[in-house]
Amino acid sequence: MSAVFDHPWLSGLFGDAEMAALWSADAHLKHMIGFEAAYSRALGAVGIASPEVAAAAARAIEAARIDTVRLANATATDGLPVPDLVAQLKAAAGEAAAAVHKGATSQDVIDTALACCLRDSCTLLRGRITALASDLAEMRDRHGTRSLMGRTRMQAALPITVGDRIDAWAQPLGDHLDRLDRLAPQVAKLQFGGPVGTREGLNGHGEAIAAHLARELGLANGPQWHARRDGIAEFAGLLSLISGSLGKMGQDIALMAQQSPPEISIAGGGASSAMPHKQNPVLAELLVTLARFNATQLSGMHQSLIHEQERSGAAWALEWMILPQMVMASGRSLSAATGLCNTLRSVGSSGEHSL
Amino acid sequence: MSAVFDHPWLSGLFGDAEMAALWSADAHLKHMIGFEAAYSRALGAVGIASPEVAAAAARAIEAARIDTVRLANATATDGLPVPDLVAQLKAAAGEAAAAVHKGATSQDVIDTALACCLRDSCTLLRGRITALASDLAEMRDRHGTRSLMGRTRMQAALPITVGDRIDAWAQPLGDHLDRLDRLAPQVAKLQFGGPVGTREGLNGHGEAIAAHLARELGLANGPQWHARRDGIAEFAGLLSLISGSLGKMGQDIALMAQQSPPEISIAGGGASSAMPHKQNPVLAELLVTLARFNATQLSGMHQSLIHEQERSGAAWALEWMILPQMVMASGRSLSAATGLCNTLRSVGSSGEHSL
Amino acid sequence: MSAVFDHPWLSGLFGDAEMAALWSADAHLKHMIGFEAAYSRALGAVGIASPEVAAAAARAIEAARIDTVRLANATATDGLPVPDLVAQLKAAAGEAAAAVHKGATSQDVIDTALACCLRDSCTLLRGRITALASDLAEMRDRHGTRSLMGRTRMQAALPITVGDRIDAWAQPLGDHLDRLDRLAPQVAKLQFGGPVGTREGLNGHGEAIAAHLARELGLANGPQWHARRDGIAEFAGLLSLISGSLGKMGQDIALMAQQSPPEISIAGGGASSAMPHKQNPVLAELLVTLARFNATQLSGMHQSLIHEQERSGAAWALEWMILPQMVMASGRSLSAATGLCNTLRSVGSSGEHSL
Amino acid sequence: MSAVFDHPWLSGLFGDAEMAALWSADAHLKHMIGFEAAYSRALGAVGIASPEVAAAAARAIEAARIDTVRLANATATDGLPVPDLVAQLKAAAGEAAAAVHKGATSQDVIDTALACCLRDSCTLLRGRITALASDLAEMRDRHGTRSLMGRTRMQAALPITVGDRIDAWAQPLGDHLDRLDRLAPQVAKLQFGGPVGTREGLNGHGEAIAAHLARELGLANGPQWHARRDGIAEFAGLLSLISGSLGKMGQDIALMAQQSPPEISIAGGGASSAMPHKQNPVLAELLVTLARFNATQLSGMHQSLIHEQERSGAAWALEWMILPQMVMASGRSLSAATGLCNTLRSVGSSGEHSL
Repeated sequence: MSAVFDHPWLSGLFGDAEMAALWSADAHLKHMIGFEAAYSRALGAVGIASPEVAAAAARAIEAARIDTVRLANATATDGLPVPDLVAQLKAAAGEAAAAVHKGATSQDVIDTALACCLRDSCTLLRGRITALASDLAEMRDRHGTRSLMGRTRMQAALPITVGDRIDAWAQPLGDHLDRLDRLAPQVAKLQFGGPVGTREGLNGHGEAIAAHLARELGLANGPQWHARRDGIAEFAGLLSLISGSLGKMGQDIALMAQQSPPEISIAGGGASSAMPHKQNPVLAELLVTLARFNATQLSGMHQSLIHEQERSGAAWALEWMILPQMVMASGRSLSAATGLCNTLRSVGSSGEHSL
Repeated sequence: MSAVFDHPWLSGLFGDAEMAALWSADAHLKHMIGFEAAYSRALGAVGIASPEVAAAAARAIEAARIDTVRLANATATDGLPVPDLVAQLKAAAGEAAAAVHKGATSQDVIDTALACCLRDSCTLLRGRITALASDLAEMRDRHGTRSLMGRTRMQAALPITVGDRIDAWAQPLGDHLDRLDRLAPQVAKLQFGGPVGTREGLNGHGEAIAAHLARELGLANGPQWHARRDGIAEFAGLLSLISGSLGKMGQDIALMAQQSPPEISIAGGGASSAMPHKQNPVLAELLVTLARFNATQLSGMHQSLIHEQERSGAAWALEWMILPQMVMASGRSLSAATGLCNTLRSVGSSGEHSL
Repeated sequence: MSAVFDHPWLSGLFGDAEMAALWSADAHLKHMIGFEAAYSRALGAVGIASPEVAAAAARAIEAARIDTVRLANATATDGLPVPDLVAQLKAAAGEAAAAVHKGATSQDVIDTALACCLRDSCTLLRGRITALASDLAEMRDRHGTRSLMGRTRMQAALPITVGDRIDAWAQPLGDHLDRLDRLAPQVAKLQFGGPVGTREGLNGHGEAIAAHLARELGLANGPQWHARRDGIAEFAGLLSLISGSLGKMGQDIALMAQQSPPEISIAGGGASSAMPHKQNPVLAELLVTLARFNATQLSGMHQSLIHEQERSGAAWALEWMILPQMVMASGRSLSAATGLCNTLRSVGSSGEHSL
Repeated sequence: MSAVFDHPWLSGLFGDAEMAALWSADAHLKHMIGFEAAYSRALGAVGIASPEVAAAAARAIEAARIDTVRLANATATDGLPVPDLVAQLKAAAGEAAAAVHKGATSQDVIDTALACCLRDSCTLLRGRITALASDLAEMRDRHGTRSLMGRTRMQAALPITVGDRIDAWAQPLGDHLDRLDRLAPQVAKLQFGGPVGTREGLNGHGEAIAAHLARELGLANGPQWHARRDGIAEFAGLLSLISGSLGKMGQDIALMAQQSPPEISIAGGGASSAMPHKQNPVLAELLVTLARFNATQLSGMHQSLIHEQERSGAAWALEWMILPQMVMASGRSLSAATGLCNTLRSVGSSGEHSL
């Protein structure tokens, strides 16, 4: 069970098919190819390659059949797939090979592909946050005036309404949307710096190439960020804020479910292999799990801020290990929260609480 | 050496007197007193207490001599100092005691005092980031055109300029200022919710009291955030982004200092007890240490997002253990980075690098 | 690239086919089936089921074809695969169904399967640590007397020998073997407690069943550990100690490779897509990455120590997300360290260093 | 409130006077002085200094009045207090100064002092674990046969006894003692390596000096561990295992306290400033807080395993920031758990539970 998101059966709980598609190897390869094709066209546009050769190179790149076994073998040696990918693309381009990747570096390709994945993920996250906010609003409309024991420091305190509790779950969502709108252009951003980040060796056309690439790829433009990872790390923070505020909701629901009588009832709770009378608050627990997972991972993303010199190998690869999983966890926590809303049977009580 | 920031001699390295003053127990007590006095005046303003009684209570609160030994003993039992603090304030207020704390809860006092600390810290951080940016700009003016070997994946790559390297250190600072300006009002925010966060039991004057408090205390107003910690956690993320990007600068400088010949020279580097010929890049190492410290701590702040129910004891106290230290670390990392700039002797070389 | 260990091409760098086989879904299913078959036989041995029925049930379990799509769907609802797995096994057992899983609980099945995975992993790790120690000893024999600049606090200090440096890499390995030998029986341990961990409802045969299970499955016996996760967490600590001490070796090698002249030369270093003259110390960087990854993850395993009540859903599932990845990372770090040893060309210098 | 352990009033909750005394600056200075005096005597014993001069140096060292303000200023420059401490001691030794610190390095002094702090802490922890185990055994004797609802996945499952629940709290303690006995000699270990860890420049007497030091200081002897931090990191893991298993106990108690009717009653629970009817389970919450704090910190200790080259500045100082706090947290969690036991009024019920 080394990867719960893709696992044959644990993915039933942890998986998120829509988000997984955005982060699949296929998607990543498509984005890397997309970068290289756009790059060839950019070389043509600024006159480093002739327009015909550049166009031929781009066409060949887009039509190339990539040998991924060879890519894996080369990654073992090179630490990343790009040198071999470029070799395959140059072979495909034949006489147009001179208009392939010339002046770019591996990190340009991989980080720009990452930016494309993040751009698409932002769209998906945005839709889900909006949907969840709407579900919670509807839940509030239906149950908001019912009574609930307010609890502080794990003790019954004073009665509140169900609406008060739901507000605490819903309020962060609006702020998450604002954060997402602000951070999306920061991470859906072209990476183009060349070998040491200076956009040099391109007859002074570095900036023009960057502008061309950003436009064609639908990404924000800006200075290269090879060793400047605060944008990525801040976005990881948002991922954990999202799963964290849903973790609070999950913890609340799990606690409500264990009061006697239960303060909440969810349809279709989990079966127990030993106790048929039980209804486990599976999705609520999952929200707690995903929140603590992302809180753990975030530390690694911030350790990765220490990208030494012009480009780091070690700190960069640590991001590869962590960031995609954080996106998956946040995506799944949103779908699980919506799942909880959709299976809610009742919450709170109609009567008045007394202490 | 259980607390490096306040330690008799380790504070020489880790300490930050200006920031420590903002987070001292005295400062915190002053802010708690400030809340209670403003609260009494607010009760008078909305008519829950008579104006005279409210004014008398506020005066008594502001003049009260707090027995902190008693406060400590009570904290052992109650888990927080507020119940006993309120008892002391009520005793001080005598006949005006009814206009003290009535309708507020402990977390209102402590979180609002925290908000005051954070507000003042934002101002200090802002000034330091601005100063550091200016120092780096001056360093760039002086040394920017000199030559430096660009290094990628821990290997010599191609020559760059010193300016290219400095840009990588300086660019995040502008964004940190933007983040600070955006997040400051989010954390310098009044906390007022009452026992279960509903601002009830105040004859409908809850919102008016909140408005009065925010105005008098110089804090942003908004809904209570007893169990909604995303604002605090996001701010902790910024603290780690700051120390993290300075950690990158520190790592770079430590690596530059160990090249032969050294690519950088810093005056006043650390003495060795064994090797008088050495000049240890002490402040550069410190930047790395502080960055990894905050990256570690951030995980705990995000675990604390899971504040269960209306108010949490366990998750909240975890913030107390972590957040002040993160502020101290970020404050010190800024002063240490400035210290490095101010002791820079030379960087890069005048000649041309060859591979 | 959501799972680097299994990724089509990133697995070239991060993957570890031997370890992955031990943690595959197939292996896990085989161990769960193994538990259930042994459990049926145990029920027969103690007389809860007739020997014939028990044997028939065990045979049917071992021959059952499991529908993993159904398993995935059920996991979505139940939070784990066992209730549906048991239903499939009971269906397969037909009239012998009463001798299936009776008195056991889901966590018994999953944790015992985990114990089997860990047992097999310990064997693999042991072999690799031994092999690496031998490689380092050979490296020391060949190069140990050569000269190397000793460096402290990122500064040249005094000359040492290559053997001194290698000793620092090799010494922890012997201790890791001791730790492994001590912890292996602690994690390769039967989990059997029944619904609430009391081994009840089995006509007083709970202990006898546990003894039977442990013997048949080749696991240590002992009290159930449903909510007692210190054994697992301590083992996770060992995984991070292993990758951490190899991370120190990797960091050293990456630093040695960037001195001028380089203090180490490794054959087959990584190609650069932009700079053919470079030889990136890919495996050395990988060791640093894996060490920081496991250091990050370990925090989550310790958060999971807070397993509430008799059995936790949320804290337990967090282990599923983290522990297998830690094993993969430690396994790969050992193979990568061996890879570095095997491709070493030269280290240190024959001459004398001077300051 | 930058340091809860030493804070004027928060120390009422978090503080641990006995443990704090072991980690005070005074204690640390005493241990550093102790190292230097023993070192001078060792130089005399092996003949590097004359016996008379060595004895004079040792006497002067032990009688020296250290100027800690000067120490703090020097730490700011040197990154550690030892160069200036040695200078003060040499001044105190006058003509015997040649028998002071000669051949040792700063890290020898600081790490050996740390080893002394850890040795003393192990004794204190051992006593507290033993006492807590005894308290839990007594609790079990008194209340163990009472009934309690067993709960799994945050749901009522089947009845258990109070003894079953207490067993889950008590069982890890025996293993913690075993771990402590095994790890104590590993961390209560002399550090002596000299400038680059080779114990050279001492006329071949390095090993004899180490043996002398270990004997005199009451520490285990062994190879130097300047850059080998697995012993320290493993001990940090034990600290977190201790606080983590007590965190599980705390979480259980907090959950028991919030059932209606409460399943546990603790005398002297915390007062609320707003709700006099409440009894907050303050110490139970504190156990959860301390567990999550140490789980967070442990990650940083494992990041510190990457001590580069012969001695690291950055990774080492990260330990200074974290390890003492972890010891404080584990010490306090043991005293808080004992406090809970001692204030227990009732637990479980006499009747039979039904579902």
